[in-house]
Order: sequence, then C-alpha cells, then structure tokens
Amino acid sequence: MGVLVLGTVTLDTVETPEKRVQEVLGGSGMYAAVAASFFDNSIRLVSVVGDDFPQDYTDILSKHGVELEGLRRVENGKTFRWGGRYSDDFNVRDTLFTELNVVLDFHPILPESYKATPFIFLANDPPQLQLDIIQQATNPKLIVCDTMDFWINEEREALDKTIQHVDILILNDSEAKLLTGESNLIKAARMILQIGPERVIIKKGEHGAISVTDSSFFSAPAYPLTEVIDPTGAGDCFAGGFIGYLASVGDTSESSIRKAMIYGSVIASFNIEDFTINRHRTVTKDDIASRYQELQEIAKF
Amino acid sequence: MGVLVLGTVTLDTVETPEKRVQEVLGGSGMYAAVAASFFDNSIRLVSVVGDDFPQDYTDILSKHGVELEGLRRVENGKTFRWGGRYSDDFNVRDTLFTELNVVLDFHPILPESYKATPFIFLANDPPQLQLDIIQQATNPKLIVCDTMDFWINEEREALDKTIQHVDILILNDSEAKLLTGESNLIKAARMILQIGPERVIIKKGEHGAISVTDSSFFSAPAYPLTEVIDPTGAGDCFAGGFIGYLASVGDTSESSIRKAMIYGSVIASFNIEDFTINRHRTVTKDDIASRYQELQEIAKF
Repeated sequence: MGVLVLGTVTLDTVETPEKRVQEVLGGSGMYAAVAASFFDNSIRLVSVVGDDFPQDYTDILSKHGVELEGLRRVENGKTFRWGGRYSDDFNVRDTLFTELNVVLDFHPILPESYKATPFIFLANDPPQLQLDIIQQATNPKLIVCDTMDFWINEEREALDKTIQHVDILILNDSEAKLLTGESNLIKAARMILQIGPERVIIKKGEHGAISVTDSSFFSAPAYPLTEVIDPTGAGDCFAGGFIGYLASVGDTSESSIRKAMIYGSVIASFNIEDFTINRHRTVTKDDIASRYQELQEIAKF
Repeated sequence: MGVLVLGTVTLDTVETPEKRVQEVLGGSGMYAAVAASFFDNSIRLVSVVGDDFPQDYTDILSKHGVELEGLRRVENGKTFRWGGRYSDDFNVRDTLFTELNVVLDFHPILPESYKATPFIFLANDPPQLQLDIIQQATNPKLIVCDTMDFWINEEREALDKTIQHVDILILNDSEAKLLTGESNLIKAARMILQIGPERVIIKKGEHGAISVTDSSFFSAPAYPLTEVIDPTGAGDCFAGGFIGYLASVGDTSESSIRKAMIYGSVIASFNIEDFTINRHRTVTKDDIASRYQELQEIAKF
C-alpha cells in the first residue's frame, strides 16, 4: 500500500572491538526504508544528501526498490556524517562526531507522488521536520514516529506536539525513561499514551520489545543472537520492518501489529550481523520466514 | 509427586522507599516452598532455625501445607537474620547485614520420609550443602539448583561440582555473567551447559526469563507489574512455582518446562506485590489461572 519514510541518509564511521569501517551507508531513514522494502514494494524515502554522496550508495537503495524522488541532493553540500565507537560488549556506544552538514537547512517538501502514501514512518529527525511531513500528507492511514534522547532533551515542546499527531510512538527503553522520568517501562508507556498516541512500542534490545495501548499489552521476544557485528541501525530496521509489514497487509489490527513487531525484530536481527546494510543484501524471503517461525517456536508455551 | 526444598528460613528486615519491615518471614527455602505449595501437596522443606523462630511463622508454613520434619530447630540458637535496602526504582539492593547464626553449623540430614522425593530444588545455600542433599536423595527424577554471586566468587570449585550433578541450573542474568565472564546471555547459558546441567534458566526480572538447552531455546515474558512493593524472594518464588508445577504434572518435557516457567513467573509476580509472603496468603487457584491466561494473551502472535 506504500510507505513514506522520513529520516537521515548518512555516511557512518563505526568502530567495534573487531573492526573499523569508514563512511559506509547509514542513517535512520536509509535503514528503515531498506528494512521496509522486504515487505512492501512502494517505499518512498524523504531525505537529503550532499553531492559527495556516492552513486554506489544510491544504486544500493535503488536495488532495494526504494523510491528516491524525495531524496534531495544538495549541490556543493556535504552529506551528514556520523562516527561512533562501541564498547567491548556493545552495551555502550560513544558518539565520536556528528556533522549535520546538509541536514541543517533541510526543509522537506513532499513530491506529489508521495503525498497520498498511507503508511508513514518518521524516523529520527528534528520533531519540527516530522510535523512538517505529517502536515503535507493527504491520506495517512497510520503514522509511526521514532525519536531520540537529543530531541527529548533539547526540543521537548516541539516533540510533544509531534507526538500528539502520531498513532504510534516507537522508542527504546532509555528514551522512554528519559521522556517520562519513570523507570517502570509499563508505567512510562502509559504516561506517553497520555500525550496522544494510541500505541507506544518500547524497544529493549536483547530483551525484545513491548507494545502498550489503553487496552492491550504485548511482549515480543528478541531473536536470540550470539554474534553481534554492528548494532547500528537495528532500531530503525525494527521500525522499518514493522511498518513495511503493516503496509503489505494493509491493516493495523492488534494481530497485525504483533506480527509486524516480530517481522521488525527479524529484520533487525539480520542487520546486526554485519556493518551497514551488508547483511540485507543477501537476505531472502525464505530467511525472513525461517526466523519468524523460529521466534514463534521460541515464544510458544 | 513431591518436592524437596533445601534453602534458608530467615528473619528479614527490609527497607523500601515506602516502608520498613522488621524480622519478617524470609529465606530462599521458605519462599520456594510456599511457591511450590500452590501446585503440589507434598512440599518437604529442609532448613534450620533457632529457638527464637516465632511459632506464628511455623504456623504460616504449615497452613501452606509445607512439611516441616526437615526443619531443624536449634536449642539456644539464633535464626539467620538478613537486612536489605532497596533503591528508589528497586534496581539496586544493598545488603545491610547478614547474620548466619545457626546456618553456620548446619549439616542437613534428610528424614527417611524425605529421601525418595522425586523433585528436588536446591535453593541458594552453600554448594557443599546442596551436594550433600543430592547424595542423600534416593530417587531423584529432577534436580534443580539455584546459586548466588557469593558462592560464585567464594566457592567456585564446590559450586562447579554441585552444578555437575544437577539437571537444571536457575540463576539470574548478573549471576550468569559472573559465572562465565560472558555478557551475551545465550552464550553464557551455553557455557554453563558445558559444566554439566542439561538446561540453564536465566531469570531477567522485568524482562522475563530464558531457558536454554543444547537443542532448545525458550523466551518467557514477565508478568507486567506496575506496582512493586518488595521484590525480595521473587526469584525463589519463580523457582518454587516452577518445580511445584513440574511435580504436579510429573513430567519434565520441554512443553511442561515452559508452562512451569510461566507458572513460576505468576507466583513471583504475586510475591512482589507485598512484603514477605503476605500476598500469597490470599492468592487463589483462580488468581493463578487468570494471570497464566493473561501471559498467554501477552505472548501471542
């Protein structure tokens, strides 16, 4: 049915205990769009890069079927660059640098062909940009939004306004605690529901994810991974796989939402097995179906 | 079919952000035995108290149907006392004092009526005591063992020897990491399997529990609690409910093990809702069935 993805497209430099990669394809919008592309064949990316953005990377996105009419390329502009380093057990990530570059002056305007897209994912980006997209959308069926600690700390008022206009807020456990000041995640989720969304999904990494509405609670197991290569983008892949699956089935029932969370976990689990989206380039529909079935077996009692 | 429980019976002084209780009924063996009593009607406790142990507390155990022939009462002895304080969000517990008293010279001898008990739970106690019980048991069908950081640090050799003789080791996430030096819990569980047990169950508090064997993996959701009064004994209640359920159905299949973990989580969830075992005194079979069904609903996709 179509998924619109707003988010960053970046050049990432990532250091892990084992390896360092430089200026690889990254960004919340990129990860989410590629993840969504496994389920729906109309994935429309809204983002910005500089004219230093390699054609090879654009080609990778095109190969995944991601529509790029909304990917603005700024002449004489530099692409957003991010650098991070993971601790030995991957539990701590230090940001080494953030060069916003072309993102600083980005005011997204939806192409005509994007405006009526029914499923919208607002990946991590300034809350005001997220709201801009919501206001330009003409036919939203489901609006899902992510955020991060930076916006919670620095743009709380704008963030609250955006959250009021979305159906589902997805965030991780530490962000949920930061947003509410509440350490019990279920209480935190209920406090966020008071701001406006009808559902809150909290990502808990190796502990899976939970979904909370006024009348439902779902606990999704994580796919049991023993080899972590690079966790960068896993949360965006979760959200992208989630909304991609929902768009493919065209409904937002509790049952579909739960399946979508499991599919999101599956795509995230592949993402962690290599740097950037390298692992995604060889993932097949059978691979996805196989991990989905494993998760069914893992959760059965 | 009968459950033998080895573990401590103590007088606990517990401080939470809301309240302080003094010399209430506590101890790993006490919590586990009471939890198991909800499922099986032959729960046999092996422990020791002093002659200062209140008759009221003995009566509470009897009311839960716990058999006390193996509860030694030492003349002129003082009961094990423990004091702890919880942080504001219950994530940190400081031990304020530990007075081992009569536990120091305790060498448990199984009463004749206990020896052939098929299901055995060795709650937190010195590894050598746990091994003594194993060696006195004449008809073990399933031996489940718990431990804690103190024995991992101080009695590693004896602990390994005990672990080699048990079927299932239950421990929490931080203990699994401490025992193996491995932060990935699945890898840690597999390392523990190499020591000898055929199954490792890792308790993760609000994130549920996982069970790992050479050929299976199960992820159990936690019961979603928003009001924590006192977490003391929750892990022992999990293990007690777990083995009590298994004894009641008399088998140790993967399917029964999974159900048993869910029943263990249910009993633990009640335990957290009040100090000592106060909440258990009013829990009914219907209450248990109701939370079990809720957990089925919570995990379904």
